[in-house]
Amino acid sequence: MATLKDVAKEAGLTVGTVSRVLNNRGYISDDAREKVNGAMKKLNYHPNEVARSLQGKSTNTIGLIVPHIRHPYFAEMISNIENQAYKKGYRILLCNAQSIEEKEREYIDICTGNRVAGIILCSGTVSVEVFDGIRVPVITMERFLDNGTAAVECDNRQGGTLAAERLISCGCRHLLHVGNISSISMPADQRTEGFRQVCEKMGVAFHEVFTEKSQYHNMKYDALIEKALQEHPETDGLFVNSDVIAAQALQVCRRMGISVPGQMKVIGFDDVNIAALTTPQLTTIHQPVREMAEIAVNLLHDAASGKIVPKRTVLPVYLVERETA
Amino acid sequence: MATLKDVAKEAGLTVGTVSRVLNNRGYISDDAREKVNGAMKKLNYHPNEVARSLQGKSTNTIGLIVPHIRHPYFAEMISNIENQAYKKGYRILLCNAQSIEEKEREYIDICTGNRVAGIILCSGTVSVEVFDGIRVPVITMERFLDNGTAAVECDNRQGGTLAAERLISCGCRHLLHVGNISSISMPADQRTEGFRQVCEKMGVAFHEVFTEKSQYHNMKYDALIEKALQEHPETDGLFVNSDVIAAQALQVCRRMGISVPGQMKVIGFDDVNIAALTTPQLTTIHQPVREMAEIAVNLLHDAASGKIVPKRTVLPVYLVERETA
Repeated sequence: MATLKDVAKEAGLTVGTVSRVLNNRGYISDDAREKVNGAMKKLNYHPNEVARSLQGKSTNTIGLIVPHIRHPYFAEMISNIENQAYKKGYRILLCNAQSIEEKEREYIDICTGNRVAGIILCSGTVSVEVFDGIRVPVITMERFLDNGTAAVECDNRQGGTLAAERLISCGCRHLLHVGNISSISMPADQRTEGFRQVCEKMGVAFHEVFTEKSQYHNMKYDALIEKALQEHPETDGLFVNSDVIAAQALQVCRRMGISVPGQMKVIGFDDVNIAALTTPQLTTIHQPVREMAEIAVNLLHDAASGKIVPKRTVLPVYLVERETA
Repeated sequence: MATLKDVAKEAGLTVGTVSRVLNNRGYISDDAREKVNGAMKKLNYHPNEVARSLQGKSTNTIGLIVPHIRHPYFAEMISNIENQAYKKGYRILLCNAQSIEEKEREYIDICTGNRVAGIILCSGTVSVEVFDGIRVPVITMERFLDNGTAAVECDNRQGGTLAAERLISCGCRHLLHVGNISSISMPADQRTEGFRQVCEKMGVAFHEVFTEKSQYHNMKYDALIEKALQEHPETDGLFVNSDVIAAQALQVCRRMGISVPGQMKVIGFDDVNIAALTTPQLTTIHQPVREMAEIAVNLLHDAASGKIVPKRTVLPVYLVERETA
């Protein structure tokens, strides 16, 4: 196997110059860079990243902890974070904590044990004390952590406001809202707040239904929606907290013989791929997932470089008008 | 920061015993294991995985290279691979090569540079020579590589056969098949073969349409399907190569005033979450993604341990009857 010395010899340069090229440090002429890259290619030399990272303090790996992978929202989030990480020279250690506190805790240990540059946490079941002992930046997505480094959120309250305004302007007078998991407190709860406030101001009746962890993990909401519609048969407008729930609301309406958007308007949340794949296509609240992912990686990079970063970043949402409301 | 010595002192054991517990090597009594774990917890000691992996030959990291993350099939595959990796004590370095040869090549270098235990490759744009220089196992998913370690596939031909048989038994006589990306050869091409063979045997007319890389990456097939249905207005049965394509076929049919399953039967492929989220729900070919993922991780583990592993593993598929055929 080729060594650094072999590369230097092949390139006709000193070991120090080759090392500068590999570490991208100090002055390097284009000519030297080309020679080193040519020699590495010729000798099939792969720098040992493990050894290199030992010399530095941490690796250029980001620990990404999510509660779900196959859920379209997280698939979209992971894809965008991976893309931005690649651009910034980081790679992704992907951890699916499945909202299990013990697994999340273990994954945090695995990340720190692997000397990650920082953690992006999209999951939020462990108690805050766990984060006190962590020496790397922790960026939380749609979660707020008092002792985290920075939180990235969308304007959830605004999303709820926009949904209520839209349904009411479509003529709906009996609204139903399917909210978050009742046992976990998170920024997305603000969607319900924004929605409630508009309904109360406009004097429009509404009911709220909350969901459970198991429904979230199995992505099975149809029984819940069917029961709610049976209990509130006057409902003419639905605002639900994800496009996955909205897709199932369309199925339930069809089964119950309720036409969408004729007799029932439906608005989802997230605007991820499933929103454009249903029949009819979903009207939904667009969450700027790409921008949130880019900002999270940039915040992690800045924080890991010792910069002061904003504690909280809130991005705007907007209504995407398709066919269901 | 606590050291191994501190842990040994706290546990009242020798450094050698603590090291044996950490490396899970040789005889360790339950009592010793408990004492070490207790001491580590008390001292907030995190073993430096980077340093530990330098002592061994490779890390317990799997490089997972995919062409897509947000596509429901890959989201499902990644989720299952991550889950099995966790069970086997591996973590996942997630790389999205986006079917870009240069990016795929670079990610392979990143994986080997990070001393991964092996690579699971769900992407397949680089030429085979690249893999000759790799010293770790390479497991390919739905890709066959002459110089790979092992390939895991589903019985694609059988899938095509089942779809054709089902459509014909539903009374369809003018079939249309939306196949794979024409420029990339892959095991999934066998779906078309199986489908064609049944049609020819039964004397049923059929047309084939192929897709492009850009459609695959944007998950946008509606224009393609609409054009094909305009060119072949007699079509009464559709077999398409993914549930994502099938979901869009439902949208196109609705737009064109064609009722499903009344005037048109539709069969997808994969049976991932989107198949159960459309209205009507998709009849599709179930690909055993969970089992394929488990087998891939196990093969990688065995091959990395120096065992001889099967070069090719083919899993069965079956038809899931829902509402569209």
